[in-house]
Amino acid sequence: MLTNSHTPTVKPASSKFLPPTDAKARVSQFMKQLQDEITQALAELDGVGEFKEDAWERPEGGGGRSRVLREGKIFEQAGVNFSEVWGSHLPPSILKQRPEAEGHQFYATGTSLVLHPRNPYVPTVHLNYRYFEAGPVWWFGGGADLTPYYPFAEDAAHFHKTLKQACDQHHAEYYPVFKRWCDEYFYLKHRNETRGVGGLFFDYQDGQGTLYRGPDPKGPAASYSDEVGVVAQRTWEDLFAFIQGGGRAFLPAYVPIVQRRHEIEYGDRERNFQLYRRGRYVEFNLVYDRGTIFGLQTNGRTESILMSLPPLVRWEYCYQPEPNSPEAELYDTFLKPQDWINWTTTH
Amino acid sequence: MLTNSHTPTVKPASSKFLPPTDAKARVSQFMKQLQDEITQALAELDGVGEFKEDAWERPEGGGGRSRVLREGKIFEQAGVNFSEVWGSHLPPSILKQRPEAEGHQFYATGTSLVLHPRNPYVPTVHLNYRYFEAGPVWWFGGGADLTPYYPFAEDAAHFHKTLKQACDQHHAEYYPVFKRWCDEYFYLKHRNETRGVGGLFFDYQDGQGTLYRGPDPKGPAASYSDEVGVVAQRTWEDLFAFIQGGGRAFLPAYVPIVQRRHEIEYGDRERNFQLYRRGRYVEFNLVYDRGTIFGLQTNGRTESILMSLPPLVRWEYCYQPEPNSPEAELYDTFLKPQDWINWTTTH
Repeated sequence: MLTNSHTPTVKPASSKFLPPTDAKARVSQFMKQLQDEITQALAELDGVGEFKEDAWERPEGGGGRSRVLREGKIFEQAGVNFSEVWGSHLPPSILKQRPEAEGHQFYATGTSLVLHPRNPYVPTVHLNYRYFEAGPVWWFGGGADLTPYYPFAEDAAHFHKTLKQACDQHHAEYYPVFKRWCDEYFYLKHRNETRGVGGLFFDYQDGQGTLYRGPDPKGPAASYSDEVGVVAQRTWEDLFAFIQGGGRAFLPAYVPIVQRRHEIEYGDRERNFQLYRRGRYVEFNLVYDRGTIFGLQTNGRTESILMSLPPLVRWEYCYQPEPNSPEAELYDTFLKPQDWINWTTTH
Repeated sequence: MLTNSHTPTVKPASSKFLPPTDAKARVSQFMKQLQDEITQALAELDGVGEFKEDAWERPEGGGGRSRVLREGKIFEQAGVNFSEVWGSHLPPSILKQRPEAEGHQFYATGTSLVLHPRNPYVPTVHLNYRYFEAGPVWWFGGGADLTPYYPFAEDAAHFHKTLKQACDQHHAEYYPVFKRWCDEYFYLKHRNETRGVGGLFFDYQDGQGTLYRGPDPKGPAASYSDEVGVVAQRTWEDLFAFIQGGGRAFLPAYVPIVQRRHEIEYGDRERNFQLYRRGRYVEFNLVYDRGTIFGLQTNGRTESILMSLPPLVRWEYCYQPEPNSPEAELYDTFLKPQDWINWTTTH
C-alpha cells in the first residue's frame, strides 16, 4: 500500500467513452451542414430576404461564419451562426463545471440561431448545438426553445412533440429531463416568467451516466432541483447521433408554425405587444444567458454574439396586460412551465 | 499584555468621522427634495408630459416613490426615483468592498434618474446620489453622466464645467478624480466605447482619506489604475454638503443643453441612429451596471430598476457610421475619454 501511495489506481477510461480520432472534423462538418440546411430552408420560406455571410477569424484560434437575413418578408431578422474555435484554456466558468479540463487546450464547435419574425403571431425561436473537447474530457450541449407572443397551445404542443420524437429515438429520459432543464434555464427571475414555452436544453453530455446534474448554481431557483442523476450511459457515437437528430428536428418543429401564422393580420396592438415582449428576450440574453455573457467577457465577436438581440424593442414602465385578453393568457399560461405533450384543448 | 489580549486597544473613531444622530433623516429629506426639485423643473421644461408617481413598499423594509413622465414633448421617457430602504444585511457584492459592515443591519437612501429625450440632438442623462449606513461604516456615492447621440463639444464642455464648479467648492481633487472614475465605470468593454461623454462617478466616500481606491475589480481594465490613493480627509458634514452641491448642479448642467437642442429638426436618419445608440444604454445597464444587476438579483422593484431602459431601441447587425459623418465623429471623439474642461474648437 505504501509503495503504491503515489500511484493511485486509475481505472482506464472505457473505450466506449472515447471520441473517435476524427470527432472534431465530423462534428464541425455536421454543424456547417446544419447551418447550410437551415439557412437554405429559411431563405426559401421567407421568399424575399437573403442571408448575407460574414466569415470571421478569431485571433486566438479558429473562426466562424455568421449569416444574417434582415428585412425579409417573414423574418425581420434571422441570424444563424457557425463557429469552430480553439485556444489554450477554457474560461473559469466552464472549468468550474469541468475541472478535468484545467491546464488543457480546448476545441469547441457549434451552430446557433435566433429568428425574429415580423408578424407577432409567429414565435421567436432559438437553437444551439455545440461540442467541446479539452484534454481528457469532451461533451455535447444544446437545445431549442420557442418564444411566442400570442398564445397558441397548438404551436407549443407541435414544437414540443417534434422535439420529443427526436429525443425518444435515442433515450426515453431525454425529453422529460431536457424539457425541464429548458424551463429552468430560460427563466427570468426578476420577472418571475419563463422566456417562452421552452423546448429542450442540456449541457455537459459526455455519456458517462448522469443526464442532469441539477440546476446551474448561477441559474434560477429550481422547483425540481432534487430530481437529478438520471443515469444513461451513452457512447460518443450515440450522443453525436442524438445531436444530429435534434438539429435536424428544428425545421419540422418550427416551419409549420410559421406557415400557419405568418399571414394572420395584425395591427398596432399586436405589434406593440411583440416589441414589448422582445424586451424580455434582451433582458434574458444580457442578464442571464451564459453563452452571451461568456462571449462578451472573453473577447468573442460582439456582432455575432449580439445577433440574438431583436432589431426593434420597446420597454414600457409598469405594463400590465388587460384581464382576459390574449396577452393576459400568454402571461397566465405560456410563461409558466407546462406539460405541452399532454395538452388538450379542454385543459 | 497577556491580560489585555482579549481586549485589543481600539483607537476610538475621531468624532469628525461619525455621522450626526439625525444623519439618515437629513439625507433622506434632501434626496426627496432633490427628486421634487428635479421633477418639477423637468415637467415645466417639457410643458406637456406629467410625472406619474408610484409609491411602493419593500417587504424587507422601507420603500420609495418612482416618478415617470411618458410621451412628453421633450422627454419620450423620464424616470426619477427616490428610495429609502433598510434590512438585516448588505449583499455580498457590497460587503466585499466594505467588510466592516458584515453582520450589521443597513440603511440606504438615494435618488436616481434617467431621461430619454425624443429629439436625437438632446442627450440622454443619468444621475444617482446615495447614502449608506451599516454598523460602524457609512458612505456616500453618486454622480451624473451625459450620453449624447450627436456630437456637440459645447454641450459636453458645459456639462463638465458645471459639475466641476460644484466639485471645486468642496475639494480641488474631486473633479479630476471623479471624472476619471466616471470614464472608467461607464465603459462598454465588449464595444470598446465609453457610454457617452461621462461626468462624475464616485463611491464609498467616507471622509477617511482615500478618494479613489482603484478600479472596481469587476469593472473594465483601467488605463490609470495606478493613480490611486488621493488623500482628502472630510467630515460627514463636508461630504453631505458636497452631495447636496452635486445634486443641485444637475439642472444647471443639463437644462441649458436641452433648451438649445430640443427644437433642432431631425429626420429618420437621426432618429434611427438615436434608437441604435440607445441599445448601448441597454447593454451597459444590463451587462455592467452594478446598481441594476444588484437590484435585479436581490428582489428590488423590477419596474423601478428598469425604468432606466429606453422606451424604444434598435439593434442593427454590423452597423458602421459613414466616414466623416456626425455619427462617425461621435464614435471617434465622444465615445473616448476626453478633457472636456480644456476643450477648444480648434482641438
